[in-house]
This record gives sequence, structure tokens and C-alpha cells, in this order.
Amino acid sequence: MLDPRTSVIAERLAKTKRIVAVSSGKGGVGKSMVATALALSLSQGGCKVGLFDLDFTGPSTHIILGVAKNVQPKEDKGLVPATVDGLVYMSIVYFVGDNPAPLRGADVSNALIELLAVTQWGELDFLIIDMPPGIGDAVLDLIRLVKKIEFLIVTTPSMLAFEVVKKQTDLLCELKMPIVGIIENMKMDKSRLIQQETEKLGLKYLGPIQFDPAVEDSIGNSTMLMLTAI
Amino acid sequence: MLDPRTSVIAERLAKTKRIVAVSSGKGGVGKSMVATALALSLSQGGCKVGLFDLDFTGPSTHIILGVAKNVQPKEDKGLVPATVDGLVYMSIVYFVGDNPAPLRGADVSNALIELLAVTQWGELDFLIIDMPPGIGDAVLDLIRLVKKIEFLIVTTPSMLAFEVVKKQTDLLCELKMPIVGIIENMKMDKSRLIQQETEKLGLKYLGPIQFDPAVEDSIGNSTMLMLTAI
Repeated sequence: MLDPRTSVIAERLAKTKRIVAVSSGKGGVGKSMVATALALSLSQGGCKVGLFDLDFTGPSTHIILGVAKNVQPKEDKGLVPATVDGLVYMSIVYFVGDNPAPLRGADVSNALIELLAVTQWGELDFLIIDMPPGIGDAVLDLIRLVKKIEFLIVTTPSMLAFEVVKKQTDLLCELKMPIVGIIENMKMDKSRLIQQETEKLGLKYLGPIQFDPAVEDSIGNSTMLMLTAI
Repeated sequence: MLDPRTSVIAERLAKTKRIVAVSSGKGGVGKSMVATALALSLSQGGCKVGLFDLDFTGPSTHIILGVAKNVQPKEDKGLVPATVDGLVYMSIVYFVGDNPAPLRGADVSNALIELLAVTQWGELDFLIIDMPPGIGDAVLDLIRLVKKIEFLIVTTPSMLAFEVVKKQTDLLCELKMPIVGIIENMKMDKSRLIQQETEKLGLKYLGPIQFDPAVEDSIGNSTMLMLTAI
């Protein structure tokens, strides 16, 4: 059966030029940091940018940006996102709250679809999505529902992270999803291993981001974040 | 309906004295490294130890230990695990292979239950389980099926990791699951923040593990791993 929300979602995203899903097969690689910093950079470069936190396993962009509790989306024929540090901002945290109980199976997909169907983004040059880690059911649903989605993959220099990322890119390639490239986050040395492995996969190596302890201290302060290596 | 495998699982684990689930709400905190190092330490201390990798989102203990491809469990009234570096070793990787396609919803739980039901651990002082990140359906199934499971929680010094870990411990407390304590991995400074936050939760702070770049170089070599800070 066709979900009636599918066409609503297409309409909601019609005025968004590019949709970039920041993703990683592996958790804890700094995906949310990269997504937030990317959104802020594009915005400061003069683009109209939305940031959409769909990482139901642990939404954190609201912590990174230090979004005040009273900053909330408004209801008006759907949900109109608040503007945070120049970004049109929406997060699944508004849907699930800080409840420790995780969403189960189909509930996750339902929550994501619902948020996609109700959010009024308006005109955007970029919508940056902070994706759930890996490629579970919810991510496959997103791929099905959000046309013109492009993936930007985050890894760390660790081969444990890259091995998991590789499985993810294999699957994305099988699904014929466009991949912008791979970013190597938290780099601490000059090893070219991840670059070489990325190129072996036929993917673009977008470059390293040096590990910078100041990133942790910048949590909750986007001005400080933009002064770090990220 | 009662799953007939439930009583089989209880029987399979009857001769295991303690079952420690190494877990983290957040991915990428070094959970698999901690689980592997813990299993190796206990084993070198003279205990009989099993290591069970159930992290279906990206099994990696076989990479950390450098398990050769021809080292496999043997079929004999179930699956008899191979012995790797002194550990009785089993991993979901033997079930799912290196297939990039992730298991979907109920398949995950089924695979975990199946592995629990067929693995012949024999007598063990400790069974260390490398858990999937977070508390999804599969983890809830594990909790239901494996009695006397105790949780050992891994975090990093990052508040982004700890915020997610906190939700997980809240939920484990609600479920009345015993928590051995919290380990702070990849520590780089002398901050007492995570220790204080852990104690605020009424949980035991098991101590920090200093960040050590040699851990990455030890991947695939358990002797080297045991010489690192972990």
C-alpha cells in the first residue's frame, strides 16, 4: 500500500535544492559534529540551510548548538522549524523528548515519516540531515521517501570504523545512492591509509579534519565550534 | 507464545558463572576494545572466559583479535566455539558473514536467539558479551532471554557520549538490570566530570582508560593489545 504521506513529503521538500545526508556506518565518529559544522559553514557562506536531526539513537545536534529549551517549532499547517544560529532547525528530539525509552521497530520509521511529512522547510539551498548510524530499517525508509538524497560519509582514521563504513558504502552503491564522498574525522597523524582505501572504493576522499580537543569544549556554543578544526 | 529456545538457552548458559554484557548507548566509544581486553585480562588471570560478539551493527572483535579465516566454530550437537588467544570465541559474524546487507528487524533478534541457543560454551567463569550499541529490540530480547546478565557500560569523556549513555542506564535501572559500573575510555585529560556524573547516577565509576594511539596499531594482535593502556 502506498503511504499517503509519500506525496506530502515530496511536496514539503520541493523547494529544497540539495539534500545531504551526513551518515556513518559506525557510531561515535563525530557525524553530528560534522553535520552541524557543515550546516553552519554553508549558512555563513550565504546559503539558506536547514539542519534536520533524525538520529533517533541519540539526537545530539540540539546539545551541540546549545538550543534553549524554549526554542521550539511552531504549529501552523504542519510544523514550522525555529531558526537557530541562522539554521532552519528541526530534530527528532521534539518528537521523542528526552525519554530514555527508545522507539521500537516500526515506531521509528513512523516517527521519521511523520516528521518529514509535517515539517515546513520553505525554500532551502541545502538541507543537511544528521542520519541515524548504519543502514537499518529506518534509513532504508528514508531513502525510499526522500528523493534526491545524497550521502556524505564520515569515518575516523580507525580501521575498525572504516571496515563498518565500507559495508555501508557497498550497500549504498548497490542501492544506487549518490555518495558525495568520505570525510576522515578526528585525524591525529599523517597516515594516507583511509584516503587510499576510499579511492580503492572509487569514492571521493573529501579530506581530513584534524582532531581538536577544543571541539568538546565548544559543545553548546556554535561560535566556538566554528573556530575549531572541524 | 513461549519461544521453545528459551529453555535451551538457559541450559546452554547453566555452567557459566557470570555473564557480563559490555555495552554503550553510544557507538564508537571503544566498547569492542574494552570487551576484548577485559576477556583477555580475565583469561590471563587464570579464569575460563568466553567472548561472544553480538554486535550485529558491526562485529569487530574478530578484527581486533586477528582471528584467522579458517578458525571457525565446529558443528557438534550445536556449535562448539573455537579457542582464540585462550578465549572461547563466538561471533555473530559467523552467522551473517561479511555481507554488507544488514539484518532487518525481527531477523536480528532471530539471529541472536539462534546463536544463543546453539552455542556450546561448556564451563566458564565469565562470558563477556560485546553488545550491540544502545537498547533496541534485539537488546531487549537478550535481556529477556539471558538471565543473570550484568551490564558494564563504556563511555568516552565526551558529554555527547555520556548524555546517550545516561539514557541507557536510566532504562536499564527501570528494567532493574544490574550495572557493574561505568568505564571512561579514551581519556585525555584529568577532568573528573564523568566520574562525578556517574556517581550522581548512583553508579560505580570503574575508572578511566587513557587514550593510547598504540591501541589502533594493535588491531589484529592481542599480545600487542595487552601492552597498551586498554
